[in-house]
Amino acid sequence: MKKLNTAPLSGTQELLPRTQAVFDALKEKISATYRRYGYLHIETPAIDRLEVLLAKAGGDTEKQIYKLVKTAETSTDADQALRFDHTVPLARYIVEHENHLAFPLKVYQIDRNWRGERAQKGRFREFYQCDVDVIGRKGLSLGYDADVIATLLDAFAQFELDTPVLARISNRKLLAGLLEALGLARQAKAIYSIVDHAEKITPDEVRLALEEQGLDQAQQVKLQQFMAIQGPLEAATRQLQALEIENPIFTTGVEELTEVMQRLAQMGLAGKISMDLKIVRGLDYYTGTVFEFCLPEYRQVGSVCGGGRYDQLASHFTEQHFEGVGGSIGLNRLFYVLSEHNLLKSQETSPLDFTVIPISEAETAYALEVAQELRTQGHSAALVYLDKRLGERLAYAAKISQNAIVIGENEAKNRAYEIKHFA
Amino acid sequence: MKKLNTAPLSGTQELLPRTQAVFDALKEKISATYRRYGYLHIETPAIDRLEVLLAKAGGDTEKQIYKLVKTAETSTDADQALRFDHTVPLARYIVEHENHLAFPLKVYQIDRNWRGERAQKGRFREFYQCDVDVIGRKGLSLGYDADVIATLLDAFAQFELDTPVLARISNRKLLAGLLEALGLARQAKAIYSIVDHAEKITPDEVRLALEEQGLDQAQQVKLQQFMAIQGPLEAATRQLQALEIENPIFTTGVEELTEVMQRLAQMGLAGKISMDLKIVRGLDYYTGTVFEFCLPEYRQVGSVCGGGRYDQLASHFTEQHFEGVGGSIGLNRLFYVLSEHNLLKSQETSPLDFTVIPISEAETAYALEVAQELRTQGHSAALVYLDKRLGERLAYAAKISQNAIVIGENEAKNRAYEIKHFA
Repeated sequence: MKKLNTAPLSGTQELLPRTQAVFDALKEKISATYRRYGYLHIETPAIDRLEVLLAKAGGDTEKQIYKLVKTAETSTDADQALRFDHTVPLARYIVEHENHLAFPLKVYQIDRNWRGERAQKGRFREFYQCDVDVIGRKGLSLGYDADVIATLLDAFAQFELDTPVLARISNRKLLAGLLEALGLARQAKAIYSIVDHAEKITPDEVRLALEEQGLDQAQQVKLQQFMAIQGPLEAATRQLQALEIENPIFTTGVEELTEVMQRLAQMGLAGKISMDLKIVRGLDYYTGTVFEFCLPEYRQVGSVCGGGRYDQLASHFTEQHFEGVGGSIGLNRLFYVLSEHNLLKSQETSPLDFTVIPISEAETAYALEVAQELRTQGHSAALVYLDKRLGERLAYAAKISQNAIVIGENEAKNRAYEIKHFA
Repeated sequence: MKKLNTAPLSGTQELLPRTQAVFDALKEKISATYRRYGYLHIETPAIDRLEVLLAKAGGDTEKQIYKLVKTAETSTDADQALRFDHTVPLARYIVEHENHLAFPLKVYQIDRNWRGERAQKGRFREFYQCDVDVIGRKGLSLGYDADVIATLLDAFAQFELDTPVLARISNRKLLAGLLEALGLARQAKAIYSIVDHAEKITPDEVRLALEEQGLDQAQQVKLQQFMAIQGPLEAATRQLQALEIENPIFTTGVEELTEVMQRLAQMGLAGKISMDLKIVRGLDYYTGTVFEFCLPEYRQVGSVCGGGRYDQLASHFTEQHFEGVGGSIGLNRLFYVLSEHNLLKSQETSPLDFTVIPISEAETAYALEVAQELRTQGHSAALVYLDKRLGERLAYAAKISQNAIVIGENEAKNRAYEIKHFA
């Protein structure tokens, strides 16, 4: 027999049942929270047309997408691939089902996506994204930007982590307006990228990168002041005013960001949010609000959630105008970093409540009855059919369950039993 | 702009939110039932090594598997593909993690699989399988065969369908023993296939096919009598005895089948099971118990669940002996046939409990408070930020939710509101 490699593929997650239960509990807390805030579940297929998936993609995405080889019976079909995020299938879904949907549409997707990128510790090629999105047709209130952030913050609150979570919020229009005011609109793309990476490189490297873009001393100082702005709404607003930027895009950005932060404060979340103008969210399609969540006591783990406002959701599929705001939790990476920092330790218990052990065949009928009664009460219960000594059966029960019930002759006769709890 | 096809791929499922909620409810009922019977959740990656997936496969499976094209950054990896069922990854999982698992191991998997077969109405290329399995190391009590069937029957009971569900049960050893006794062991594979298809073809076609295999009149009569046996344990056992077969494999089969059916009767399920010797489960790896569920009032939909006992789970990965018994519900097909026969109609309601509509900006703070209070009580609630006339906002609310709460000046002042229920 040829010896096959039975390890799961690099970049995929495979857990033992006890750990899987912790992962599942996180996922369930997220989906329950999303539903509580009125997001409706949708599920788009994992496989889709290549031309749809790549309609607006470029660069890395195109290099990382997993294409499928056609089979004999799909040979005449369109080229297909595994989806790499939820946003493209969502755009396709909206266009396809528009006439059957009510807008603004609040939806969530919790499912796996795939990217064939270089395998790294804590990075996944097959990964769960937990997305919430609100899609508007011809306009979408900023209230929904706050709604998305509040929903995601509440999901993190449900995790009951022993460390705070902070939503860092900005608005793309601020940086866009600043660069326009400074006469740097031409270099905008490069500067976005520098600001986006500023926390991952040294201050000297930032300075050097900005010099390379031709920024003079005054421009650099302004941009550095801008990037340093962070904190609660009022303090940050004072710093913003001190920049003395006069630009209509900048002003709109300030107004939008203020409204979003005020609404979050109305929801009692002032202590969990911070204006932070270093937040850019890469070179993605965002056009307004952008945000990232971090764990301030574990800055090194980076962003654990992110999202923002995009004004052109489906522009590659339709001329109809849809805009959206959304956010996403990358669940495998989050689970990985929370586990690595022991932030989930207390949550690991045996997923099975009871084992029921009949001493011999004669007691099986009553043991089955006991198990069924426990299930009716909402517990999980498994009968142990194991042809071994009682000691071994109890050792097995201790491994898989929180409690054992042994049914012997007396228990069956008296229809009464004791519960043995495993500490 | 090039017009892209935004329809989901043929053979995939994509539902509107309201219908998705019905599908999700079925799935949740299945997983809750599996957990209640003590099955632990595991999740194996959707992508796996091609050589692992195809280790024991052949024929159709090899033709239908979706292989993945390597990307620039996975180019040195093993050949990969999408898994086509849960059984192969389960075997790999058991071998890989054996030392960290307690046997007998009760596990469930509810996830998507993929087969690139010819697209047909009601057939899916991307489909959910909901599997339960018990894996034993060196022996596995027949009690678990009954446990698997009871668990699956209970899952169907949770659906509260307005039609009965029947588990048809046989044991492969009966047919194997019969054929040996009749001197037909050489043609066993072909005859298995004929019995397996007997319900899908005419009696004349069955007779013709058996003649083609060289069965004489007496052999044919015996086999037809065998295939006709069905019903409750006692009546069916009398018919079995009337066959007057003396063969040790046959006798073992009768004993096993009797024990499984007796245990199910002990669990109060006698009315939901039937011995039925036409059940073969194709040419799969089953070696003992085999079963299929049907809806007797809707025979034409065929099997809605199936499974059985397999004595060589991981023989392609290890010399260690594992045996298993399991069953699976094909959820997309089940959902499709139940929907087609209006058996889920009553279950479709709006997935959102409440919309909360502030008349103007001034009432938003109180509206947010009301929504949050509803959520704390376990309801789902969404605030409506929509810059339209109240009538339009109420029409929107009626589309997406079961109840609306309008917050005007008086409501905010008095901190009291009325609930408008949409019939």
